[in-house]
Amino acid sequence: MAKGCRALCFAWTRRNLNEVLIDHALASLGDAYVNFIYSLAISNRKGSPLGTKVKGSVLAEALRKAGLRECFPSRMSRHDLADGAEALIVYGWLSRCVSLDESVAMIGMKSDLVEGLSELLAKTKRQITFP
Amino acid sequence: MAKGCRALCFAWTRRNLNEVLIDHALASLGDAYVNFIYSLAISNRKGSPLGTKVKGSVLAEALRKAGLRECFPSRMSRHDLADGAEALIVYGWLSRCVSLDESVAMIGMKSDLVEGLSELLAKTKRQITFP
Repeated sequence: MAKGCRALCFAWTRRNLNEVLIDHALASLGDAYVNFIYSLAISNRKGSPLGTKVKGSVLAEALRKAGLRECFPSRMSRHDLADGAEALIVYGWLSRCVSLDESVAMIGMKSDLVEGLSELLAKTKRQITFP
Repeated sequence: MAKGCRALCFAWTRRNLNEVLIDHALASLGDAYVNFIYSLAISNRKGSPLGTKVKGSVLAEALRKAGLRECFPSRMSRHDLADGAEALIVYGWLSRCVSLDESVAMIGMKSDLVEGLSELLAKTKRQITFP
């Protein structure tokens, strides 16, 4: 069972930040996680429950604002950058560096949701550690 | 701020089970939540991260197995029943009656995922309380 995660018993640890950012399996799980925390942040803003999806363009822009674009090779599509953002955000949650509650609060804290996601990405990058 | 939920400040409480089951706003948020916990359960089963979506037919079948079909009016589509399942599952999490970890473990416990979702629905129904 992965360290610190009670109900999770799959191999999610990676050796460094670059491995996280280009991992399509993590990005796939991250898509579900990011949509959920984003939905909670939007629900808070609206005052009632709502499920929604984060656009890839929003995630790619947040990644750039967080200064993480330089961690990728030069020729990457917006889709690849969005995948990287999803992979990193869920890695922060899996490794218990950033909780779900904190993530929702950070996304919703800023009037601009790109800014909120960008702060979450920057915080996750600062706090994650590797084996 | 809703009782027991640190980062959540939207109106999610309902007066009774029937109000939960027919609430489209809760179902909309529930869709994002159920896809995430289901993805974690599937990741555990596969041994590596994977994001996936639960089919409406699977949720409707799980709801029937949990004995919850009788809580709905007679003429309901499979889509309505799936929405009811999503609304109830997220209500259990919002009200802190069933944790995310418990939910993932329950879904993955059974070889048949419909059975796992059905047990989660039955447990949520048993444990939720109303204001």
